[in-house]
Amino acid sequence: MKQQVADAVKSMIPELVAWRRDFHQFAESGWVEFRTASKVAALLKEWGYDIRIGHEVVKAEARMGVPHAAFLAEQEKRAIEQGAEAEWLPYLSGGFTGVVGILDTGKPGPTIGFRFDMDALDIQESMEDDHLPKAGGYASINAGMMHACGHDAHTAIGLGLAKLLMEQKDQLSGRIKIVFQPAEEGVRGAKAMVEAGVLDDVELFFSGHIGCDIPLGEVVCGANGYLATTKLDVTFKGYAAHAGGSPEEGKNALLAAASAVLNLHSIPRHSKGASRINVGVLHGGSGRNVVPGSAFLKVETRGATSEINEYMLERAVQIIKGAAIMHEAQEQIEIVGMANNCDSSEALIPYIRAQAEQVADVHAVHDIVEAGGSEDATYMLQRVQDNGGLASYLMFGTTLAAGHHNEKFDIDEKVMAIAIQTYALCALNAGDLAKR
Amino acid sequence: MKQQVADAVKSMIPELVAWRRDFHQFAESGWVEFRTASKVAALLKEWGYDIRIGHEVVKAEARMGVPHAAFLAEQEKRAIEQGAEAEWLPYLSGGFTGVVGILDTGKPGPTIGFRFDMDALDIQESMEDDHLPKAGGYASINAGMMHACGHDAHTAIGLGLAKLLMEQKDQLSGRIKIVFQPAEEGVRGAKAMVEAGVLDDVELFFSGHIGCDIPLGEVVCGANGYLATTKLDVTFKGYAAHAGGSPEEGKNALLAAASAVLNLHSIPRHSKGASRINVGVLHGGSGRNVVPGSAFLKVETRGATSEINEYMLERAVQIIKGAAIMHEAQEQIEIVGMANNCDSSEALIPYIRAQAEQVADVHAVHDIVEAGGSEDATYMLQRVQDNGGLASYLMFGTTLAAGHHNEKFDIDEKVMAIAIQTYALCALNAGDLAKR
Amino acid sequence: MKQQVADAVKSMIPELVAWRRDFHQFAESGWVEFRTASKVAALLKEWGYDIRIGHEVVKAEARMGVPHAAFLAEQEKRAIEQGAEAEWLPYLSGGFTGVVGILDTGKPGPTIGFRFDMDALDIQESMEDDHLPKAGGYASINAGMMHACGHDAHTAIGLGLAKLLMEQKDQLSGRIKIVFQPAEEGVRGAKAMVEAGVLDDVELFFSGHIGCDIPLGEVVCGANGYLATTKLDVTFKGYAAHAGGSPEEGKNALLAAASAVLNLHSIPRHSKGASRINVGVLHGGSGRNVVPGSAFLKVETRGATSEINEYMLERAVQIIKGAAIMHEAQEQIEIVGMANNCDSSEALIPYIRAQAEQVADVHAVHDIVEAGGSEDATYMLQRVQDNGGLASYLMFGTTLAAGHHNEKFDIDEKVMAIAIQTYALCALNAGDLAKR
Amino acid sequence: MKQQVADAVKSMIPELVAWRRDFHQFAESGWVEFRTASKVAALLKEWGYDIRIGHEVVKAEARMGVPHAAFLAEQEKRAIEQGAEAEWLPYLSGGFTGVVGILDTGKPGPTIGFRFDMDALDIQESMEDDHLPKAGGYASINAGMMHACGHDAHTAIGLGLAKLLMEQKDQLSGRIKIVFQPAEEGVRGAKAMVEAGVLDDVELFFSGHIGCDIPLGEVVCGANGYLATTKLDVTFKGYAAHAGGSPEEGKNALLAAASAVLNLHSIPRHSKGASRINVGVLHGGSGRNVVPGSAFLKVETRGATSEINEYMLERAVQIIKGAAIMHEAQEQIEIVGMANNCDSSEALIPYIRAQAEQVADVHAVHDIVEAGGSEDATYMLQRVQDNGGLASYLMFGTTLAAGHHNEKFDIDEKVMAIAIQTYALCALNAGDLAKR
Repeated sequence: MKQQVADAVKSMIPELVAWRRDFHQFAESGWVEFRTASKVAALLKEWGYDIRIGHEVVKAEARMGVPHAAFLAEQEKRAIEQGAEAEWLPYLSGGFTGVVGILDTGKPGPTIGFRFDMDALDIQESMEDDHLPKAGGYASINAGMMHACGHDAHTAIGLGLAKLLMEQKDQLSGRIKIVFQPAEEGVRGAKAMVEAGVLDDVELFFSGHIGCDIPLGEVVCGANGYLATTKLDVTFKGYAAHAGGSPEEGKNALLAAASAVLNLHSIPRHSKGASRINVGVLHGGSGRNVVPGSAFLKVETRGATSEINEYMLERAVQIIKGAAIMHEAQEQIEIVGMANNCDSSEALIPYIRAQAEQVADVHAVHDIVEAGGSEDATYMLQRVQDNGGLASYLMFGTTLAAGHHNEKFDIDEKVMAIAIQTYALCALNAGDLAKR
Repeated sequence: MKQQVADAVKSMIPELVAWRRDFHQFAESGWVEFRTASKVAALLKEWGYDIRIGHEVVKAEARMGVPHAAFLAEQEKRAIEQGAEAEWLPYLSGGFTGVVGILDTGKPGPTIGFRFDMDALDIQESMEDDHLPKAGGYASINAGMMHACGHDAHTAIGLGLAKLLMEQKDQLSGRIKIVFQPAEEGVRGAKAMVEAGVLDDVELFFSGHIGCDIPLGEVVCGANGYLATTKLDVTFKGYAAHAGGSPEEGKNALLAAASAVLNLHSIPRHSKGASRINVGVLHGGSGRNVVPGSAFLKVETRGATSEINEYMLERAVQIIKGAAIMHEAQEQIEIVGMANNCDSSEALIPYIRAQAEQVADVHAVHDIVEAGGSEDATYMLQRVQDNGGLASYLMFGTTLAAGHHNEKFDIDEKVMAIAIQTYALCALNAGDLAKR
Repeated sequence: MKQQVADAVKSMIPELVAWRRDFHQFAESGWVEFRTASKVAALLKEWGYDIRIGHEVVKAEARMGVPHAAFLAEQEKRAIEQGAEAEWLPYLSGGFTGVVGILDTGKPGPTIGFRFDMDALDIQESMEDDHLPKAGGYASINAGMMHACGHDAHTAIGLGLAKLLMEQKDQLSGRIKIVFQPAEEGVRGAKAMVEAGVLDDVELFFSGHIGCDIPLGEVVCGANGYLATTKLDVTFKGYAAHAGGSPEEGKNALLAAASAVLNLHSIPRHSKGASRINVGVLHGGSGRNVVPGSAFLKVETRGATSEINEYMLERAVQIIKGAAIMHEAQEQIEIVGMANNCDSSEALIPYIRAQAEQVADVHAVHDIVEAGGSEDATYMLQRVQDNGGLASYLMFGTTLAAGHHNEKFDIDEKVMAIAIQTYALCALNAGDLAKR
Repeated sequence: MKQQVADAVKSMIPELVAWRRDFHQFAESGWVEFRTASKVAALLKEWGYDIRIGHEVVKAEARMGVPHAAFLAEQEKRAIEQGAEAEWLPYLSGGFTGVVGILDTGKPGPTIGFRFDMDALDIQESMEDDHLPKAGGYASINAGMMHACGHDAHTAIGLGLAKLLMEQKDQLSGRIKIVFQPAEEGVRGAKAMVEAGVLDDVELFFSGHIGCDIPLGEVVCGANGYLATTKLDVTFKGYAAHAGGSPEEGKNALLAAASAVLNLHSIPRHSKGASRINVGVLHGGSGRNVVPGSAFLKVETRGATSEINEYMLERAVQIIKGAAIMHEAQEQIEIVGMANNCDSSEALIPYIRAQAEQVADVHAVHDIVEAGGSEDATYMLQRVQDNGGLASYLMFGTTLAAGHHNEKFDIDEKVMAIAIQTYALCALNAGDLAKR
């Protein structure tokens, strides 16, 4: 089996690279992955997958941080110009850019899910010559959008896995469900797919990330410790006035915001585990001699558990409200992202290890690694585990040109082959798991 | 006339000094002037004044910053031990320590009011030997109470004036109303006497202050520019918790208070005139390792006009409420003092000047001086002016051993004779005023 | 004389309107008035004025808030494309956009100065059809630059006055100095011209403003009460870090900035007069999940006197420094604008009134009006007064379509004729002044 | 052995109770345990212990939070009046209230140390009748000092252990060192004894606490997880001024303090483990109408490790300094307490369990419990462990009438017998430990 898989992947490497560079060049940020998702759907369809797409797999009300309608429309137009597949675009319109491919073997067996995220970051890609995508001619042509977190490779891996599993269909039993998710950045998209029921029948679930400061050739079977998180956009609306002539007429939204910033950071630590708060961005005021009439903040809370994150969130909301009242401003709080904490299923770790160790270029396998940050695949893991299934989040090391979210981020594309083989073996050997 | 008055005052100087030193020794702070007020009533009665006292002249609900009942009771007991007049004490009981003496000449003429404040400050008097009251054996024997603002002399002046005017009754026409007010410090008492109607029939009104950094022998006819002010006691109640073991259980009242302090001071300036805000005192928390469950603040607002002070107050209340909400604390705001701004009647200035210039020891008379700070006699001036009367606030210079409110404050008692003569002439020559 | 002047102005009205609309269409903000200043120089030269320009009249080190070199270069290029006068551009290069025209009558008499400011605001002009400049085809074609404060008309008035005085040269004695100043907005330019000595020989000085909420046909002889002011750009540089993964590594520049904002607004009021502080703009942080590594603030202080403004500034600098230290950030403070307070010479008011009353369309003349805000012509008034001269700042009412600094600001151009006549008479009748 | 020990302890119970109640009645807070320490020394001496006392065992410069000299002197006088042992008092004078008793068996073997803390809390003991010490007539007679944390029992246990071990001297080998420490509350005293070298020769070390919400009859072999901590007293000195008359002359120490409070609480969380900050007390200002000239804060930092606590402390100091600079105040920071984190030696746990299980009234033994809060015995554990020795911190459950640090705190005195037996067996069976 392992040789078969290795050979199959080897032969598709040029295709993988082409896919990844194509996605890189036409980088699309969260909820506007019109071109990417349409390409994914077209390929899956071509290979014989049953397609679920758009509203079917993305619950409208559960989406978070969706851009304004005008931006969505403009981006859809952009996607068409950049070669989006016309057949699938209508399903994706309005920011429903999720795709699921289903392969039903007809044989009894578990439903096995894989999830890949497709969105780029709001970063302007480096145009310096020592940046490989620039030199190679596939740097992003979409201003302010860049695959600086490797989701271009994730999508390519998902496609490679889909193609391979369809080729190996006879070796499989049960059902395969390959989930392509929008808007992971800002943890905005997973919940909408979970709430659409996409994960409800999945018994074995795998997702993962490339990079993560792990060397090429190393695989982590289960990444734990993701912090539950909530992302908030906060606006204070006060009343502008001439700062010299009639300061008393102003309602200073910036004073409200500054008070909020200080007090948000002073939310008491939680004795039950790690908590975090950050006001990452504050833009307030319009002119030097005008009492600031409005202020905008990007805030996030985190917690080692969802309970702790919830505690942070409740306190944060309270502080924001109080700050507004202080300065007779109106506050507006919008939740634009959310993820919970969730650990990989312990029972799955040795099984994953067994598969990863069979992959030729893998020279080190780690059971569990504590990750930092947040990841919305946790919603999916949790849904599967809540239903009695097993789920794990893997990591695949690769050489990075610069850190995640940096304008010079780049990967060693060899990691794609490693990931596809590991995932494929996890699907193909699922029978072993039952025997354990 | 002026010689008659001069002679009369000269003869009562030993008495004046004795009164003033007696009040100094038995200093009583606001609303507990039980001994002082009872002595005043007894003397006025003795001289033939018609007495109004207690509830009659002090409206209960309009009193501000009244101490707790237990303290009132304890102080009343103290006053008895210190020789309060038993006849009058029952009227004063519970903090109704205002007295008004009325002299009706039976002849047609205006009702002329004079006001003297009787209360001491919450200051511990100096016991150093270079402090004259200490050396002279009449330093305050009441712990934490001291006449460090000259109201002992004001009361003695009021008595001297009362005695003199009764002696000169035949020279007078109309009615004389001499008002002895409690609790001027913290601007707590005047409003309650005004609301009891004490000033309603007064057509000519004079009050004043000794000291004020003016040299002995100088008189100011009208002190203007007192700022309208409101005094607030603010309490934040949160919830205490162990700061190491369970910080998340606390509701930090000190964080609420600190936010309030910063934001109170940042209330926008008012373009129409001077404004002030001060958090003069903050006491918060109970122990180093306990999340502070409560905090207490003494706050004051001021404004060049009552409108500006009102603006400051409204903003302050809003900020206090918002600060409480921020940290899930309960705020409690008590108004414990209030005064408005009010200018002396311009029409009265030349008349007062004319009287003051007749007083032998006066070598300089100023028309108008801009005062700082606040004074609750302004309530009385305003009531008289609102009713169409004339009112002025005078200043009588005297040599000071130390600044007002200092533990070594002391005056040159000669100022008392100057003040009495000026006031007496203002009453005796009131006929001239009509002619102007 | 007055008829002569009236006729002369009447005949130049089409020209005035053309100049004003040309400057309006090619609006240039502070220090990049390359086209405007070159046109002014060319016309003055044509009419026979002796020209002083560039470094000669603008002291490099005393300029404030000069844009970056790249922007200056780009704007100079833009000016060339828009028809700047090639002869004069080299003098203005690098942001030395001041021009002075001198007319020496050769007859004994005082040196009389007039000052006109030429710069536009950083505002995007309205493109709605009810906005007259749009409808009339002369709305600003320079993005983000608009004459929304009437300096286009000021410049045209200056040109009209220059032309008229040259025509009436025989009626004049002494010297005329017409000063065209850059960068009044943000009070950045006057000081550099004063320090270059431009005002040193001026004995009689006039400047002024149109609009100011005064009706068309009304003239104010002396506008007083401008607040002294200082404009500060403040940058806090901290250290960015991942807010979830390693918050302790961050030095939070936004916390420093928020602390600064709160504490700046809480600088104590000054008992000697009005003071102001405003943080009009705050931009901090780069991303929601990043500890903010930098923050930028636009701050201004004001005071009824230069001493009070100095007090505010010193306190502000102290607070900014302390805030930086608190969060281990580096602060950078740049003074980008400054003006002092200065009152018009009282002795000049009746003279100006006498001239204004001769102007046909003037139906009301006011002696003194208290203005709000700040104005850097005060530097010039002060220099003239310090040298024993007389100086005044006038106001010429006009109908406004929208308030100053609004994107729909527009004037009634008739005001230009009124202003020119008033100024011209002030110069032509200067002999009368000596007789007073 | 265990029976021998049980019998010996049983016979001394009345004595134990008497000691404990005596110490309870004459409760002495940190650094003024003059009476307690002198009694301890006298008894140890009587039983044949070699005494080390005062400067010998308490390093002057390493003491923290020592009261002012006047208070020390007054308390020493009080102790004499309350029966302190005159022989030992001179050694303790000035706040050197540590005592060490040494028993050298002369036989080869390890040096075994035990530590007991003697100080009371700054709490006024309840005088309600349902409070047993009140009812029993041994409530504290020292105002504001109360054994509300059980150190009275600790001292009695130490004495009981000392007496028993001397009785059992023949069963022992090596040396026994019994350390009586002052000023554990506020973690002020341990460091001074460690720095005096008291622990340098100790190879096996035991300390512990009674209560801790553990039921009577249960013993914890090793309490871990104490947070490293630093206690700071912070004073801001500004400059007072009249808030109405000349606010600009003030340097507002309360604004500095409020800014410090907010910013201290906003020190970033540490990704490596728990951190804490608390401003437990803030007292600022002198009067409502005075710009606060001073403010005082009680602050504490904590960390899961000494490194994290150090991080918190450094940040805190920086913030305090910055806050002072902001308002031109002078800050004064005094470290008045310190403890580090330190875990019990794992190797010692089974040994302690073996001893505790032999004690008749013990019905449950726990290996390791995670404690909260802070404890300065950790300095001693660490010194012993650093020298290659083994050390553990035990807990002995007892029924509490009210929580630790409550004015109604009371214990079930039976715990004393359990603790003595456990400690005694730990010493007597030390030979077994070598065999493990």
